[in-house]
Amino acid sequence: MSKATIPKGTRDFSPEQMLKRDYVFNIIKETFYKYGYKQIQTPAIEKLETLTGKYGEEGDRLIFKILKRGDKLKKEIQKFEDNALDNNIEKSFCDQALRYDLTVPTARYVVQHKNDINFPFKRFQIQPVWRADRPQKGRYREFYQLDADVIGSNSLLNELEIILLIDSVFTELKIPDFTIKINNRKILSAIAEVTGESDKIIDITIAIDKLDKIGEQGVIKELVEKNISQKAIEIIKPILKTKGNFKDVILKLKEIISTSEIGVLGIEELETIFTYIEKIELKSAKLVLDMTLARGLNYYTGAIFEVTIEGAKLGSVCGGGRYDDLTSVFGLKDVSGVGISFGADRIIDILEDFSLYPEFISSATKLLIINSEDTNINTILLAEKFRNEGINTEIYPDKVKVKKQLKYANNNNITFVVFIENDSVMQLKNMLTGEQKICKEKEIMEEILRI
Amino acid sequence: MSKATIPKGTRDFSPEQMLKRDYVFNIIKETFYKYGYKQIQTPAIEKLETLTGKYGEEGDRLIFKILKRGDKLKKEIQKFEDNALDNNIEKSFCDQALRYDLTVPTARYVVQHKNDINFPFKRFQIQPVWRADRPQKGRYREFYQLDADVIGSNSLLNELEIILLIDSVFTELKIPDFTIKINNRKILSAIAEVTGESDKIIDITIAIDKLDKIGEQGVIKELVEKNISQKAIEIIKPILKTKGNFKDVILKLKEIISTSEIGVLGIEELETIFTYIEKIELKSAKLVLDMTLARGLNYYTGAIFEVTIEGAKLGSVCGGGRYDDLTSVFGLKDVSGVGISFGADRIIDILEDFSLYPEFISSATKLLIINSEDTNINTILLAEKFRNEGINTEIYPDKVKVKKQLKYANNNNITFVVFIENDSVMQLKNMLTGEQKICKEKEIMEEILRI
Repeated sequence: MSKATIPKGTRDFSPEQMLKRDYVFNIIKETFYKYGYKQIQTPAIEKLETLTGKYGEEGDRLIFKILKRGDKLKKEIQKFEDNALDNNIEKSFCDQALRYDLTVPTARYVVQHKNDINFPFKRFQIQPVWRADRPQKGRYREFYQLDADVIGSNSLLNELEIILLIDSVFTELKIPDFTIKINNRKILSAIAEVTGESDKIIDITIAIDKLDKIGEQGVIKELVEKNISQKAIEIIKPILKTKGNFKDVILKLKEIISTSEIGVLGIEELETIFTYIEKIELKSAKLVLDMTLARGLNYYTGAIFEVTIEGAKLGSVCGGGRYDDLTSVFGLKDVSGVGISFGADRIIDILEDFSLYPEFISSATKLLIINSEDTNINTILLAEKFRNEGINTEIYPDKVKVKKQLKYANNNNITFVVFIENDSVMQLKNMLTGEQKICKEKEIMEEILRI
Repeated sequence: MSKATIPKGTRDFSPEQMLKRDYVFNIIKETFYKYGYKQIQTPAIEKLETLTGKYGEEGDRLIFKILKRGDKLKKEIQKFEDNALDNNIEKSFCDQALRYDLTVPTARYVVQHKNDINFPFKRFQIQPVWRADRPQKGRYREFYQLDADVIGSNSLLNELEIILLIDSVFTELKIPDFTIKINNRKILSAIAEVTGESDKIIDITIAIDKLDKIGEQGVIKELVEKNISQKAIEIIKPILKTKGNFKDVILKLKEIISTSEIGVLGIEELETIFTYIEKIELKSAKLVLDMTLARGLNYYTGAIFEVTIEGAKLGSVCGGGRYDDLTSVFGLKDVSGVGISFGADRIIDILEDFSLYPEFISSATKLLIINSEDTNINTILLAEKFRNEGINTEIYPDKVKVKKQLKYANNNNITFVVFIENDSVMQLKNMLTGEQKICKEKEIMEEILRI
C-alpha cells in the first residue's frame, strides 16, 4: 500500500483555495491583456544545458534534474562502472531539467522563434517553476510566476505603462495601501563611479540594499568591512539619509552624481517617468524614488521596480526592471527589454490576511437541488434550465437524509438550496440567512442572479 | 553559447495558439463548474512510490524520474561504487517523479484529505502530465488532461449528468456532428461468463475492441489465436453484427446474457440511462450503445463512455466511466466513482481542421494606437480610457515609421488602429476592411465594442 503524502515543499490546492488563486490569477492575466501583452507557454521540461550556468552555482544546485531512461541511461551506468564518465553524475545521468524561472525559457523562446515574432514582443507567461530550495514559510519548491515583459523596445513608454499596469492590478485587488518603489541601475553605477569604487559596485549595492533591515550604521559597518574607502563612504552617507518626495531626492542626487555621464542619463529617465506619472495620476499606488532599491544588480541596466504592501508581513510582492541583454546567451544580441513579475503566492496570502476576497468566490456552485423521493426526470430538466441561465447547479446525487444534504451545502459554501415538493411546488432556502419560502422557477433564478 | 531548442515531444505555445487553447480550456472549465464540479490542483512532482506500480511495467518505464540532490545523491553514488545499492539505479537515485496522469494523484489527494472532503466529492482537475513515450503526431511528452469525477456516490444520476456535460461541452464548441458511445463493463463480464471464458475476459475484450480497425473476421481470427473456444465464438459473433438503435441492441443482448446476474444488472443500468436521456433530449450529441467499446478493462466496473467526432482524423476525444475501487491502493476502500477525461490537444487540433474558432479570438489586443511625433501624455490618457472601458489597448512603444507599426498590427491580428492627428482629431482604421475615418473618442469605443 502506498502512503498518501506529497514531497516536501509542494502543495495540494483544495477547491476553496483554487477559487482564491483563480481570482488573483485572472485579475493579473486580464490586466496583462488590457495593456496589450500576449500569452505564451513553454514546456516544464527544458534541456539541462539551456538552464545550467544561468542562475549561478547555487542555482545550478537547486535545479530539479530528470534522469535519462532506457539505453541512454544504461550507457552512462556502464561508463560509470568503467570509471569513464565524461562528466559529473548529474550531467552524465541527466540531460533534461525542470524550469527554474520564466526568464531563461522566455529568452530561449525569443531566440528560437525570432523569425515568427513581431518585435517589440509584449509577452506574458503564467506558469509554475521548480526550485529545490529548503522549504520554509512562504517558500515552496513548486510555485507560480506571473511575468510580463516587452522585448525589443528601448522606449520609456514601456516603463510608464508597467507602472500603470501595477497600479491597475493592485487597485483591482482592492489592496488599500501599496507603494511602487523605483530606482535606476544607472544611478547605482554613477554612485560607484563618483566614489572611485566602480569595481566594487556589487558590494556597495548589496550593502545599500540592506538599509531597511540593518539601518544606516549597519550599512556603513558593512561598507567598511568590504574595504570601501572612507572618502567613498562620506559620499554615500547623504544618500542613505535622503528621504522625502521625488524632487528633494533628485536635487540631492544631482549634487552627488552630476559629474557622471551615466548618472545624468539615469536622472533624466527618472525625471521623465515622474513627470508623466504626475500628470496621469495613478489610481491608488504611491510612486516613490528609493535610492536604496537594488534588485539583482548583474541583470538590470535601467529602471528597477519593487512593490510593497503596507501592513503585510511578507516583503515585496512584485518586482522587475529594464535589462539590455536578455538573449545573447542564446546568440541574439542587443535586445533590450523591460519586465515585471508578480509573486502570486504572497499576494494570495496577503489577500487572505486582509480578508479581501469577495464573498461570491467562496463557492462556484450557486444552487443545490435536494434529492428526495420526488426526484425524477423533471429535477434534471430543472437543473438544466438553471445551468442554461448561467447558474452553476448541482443535484445531490444520492437519496440520503436531508440533513446530510444540507450539511453538504453548508460545508461547500453553497448559498441556495431547492426542495422539490412536487412538480409544481418548490421551496428555496438561503443557507446564509436560514430564510425558506415557496418559489416559482423564475423567482429562484432572479433571487440567485441578484446575489 | 546555449542552443535555443526544446526537448523532443515538448512544445512552445505562441500567443495565437494560447488564445485557441484558452478558448477550449475555458469552455470545458466553465461547463465543469456549471455541473457543480470543483477544481483542485496537485503538485507536478509526486513521490516516486506514489506513482510506481500503478500504470503497469510499460508505464513505470515512461515515468519521468527526478534525480536526488546533495548528500542524498552522494550517499547513493557511494553505495553504487561499493556495489551496495538497495535497489536498481532508478529507485536508488530518484525518489520523486513527474505526474503521469491525474487519476492517481486524485486518488492520493482524496485519501490524504479525506477528513476535509465532503463526499460525494465532485472534483475537476486541469493540469499537464508527462510521459516519456515515443513522440509522434498527436502524441506529446507533456500534454494537458481535463478530468472531472464524482467520487463517493453510486447514483446513476452521475452517469446521466456526465452525458449532459459532454453534450454541453461539444455543443458549446460548435462541433457539428459527434457521438457519445456508451457500454457497460458488466455486459462485457456477462459475455465472458456466458461463453464459459470468464478467465479470458481481457483477451475477449481486447479483441472485440478492435472491431472498427480489423473487422469481424479479424476479431474472430484473434479470438481463435487466443484459444477462445469455438462455442464461445459462436455466442460472440452476433454481438459483433449487432448494430442499430438502442432497443434492438438491448433485445439481442437480453437473448445472449439474460442468464447472467451481472449481465441483467448491466442491462438495467443502460436502460435507465437511455430512458432518461430520451426524455431529456440532448442538445446535439447522438448517444449510441456500442457493444464493442471496452476502454481500460481492468479499471472500470460499470458504465463506460467514449466520444468520437464525425469527420475527424483522430480517434476518441473524450472518455471515461465508472470504477469501484480508485483509492484502495492508498488505503481507502469501497469508494465508487465515475469520471470523464477530455483530450484537449486533439480537440484543439480538430477545431483548427474544422475552422471552428470564433473570429474574435485571433487577437486579445483590440486597438493599437500609432506612435507619432504627436504622441504625448494625452495618448497615454486616451489608452487608459479605452482600457477602463474593457478594450485591450496597446500604444506602439517606439516612434518608428507608420508602415512598420501597421505591419505590427497586421501580423498581430489587431483589427483597429488609431492615428492621433492632434489633441482633438483622431482617425480610426479598420485593418480588415481598410476603411479609415475621422472619429471621436466615443465613436471609436462604440465601433470597437460593437465588433
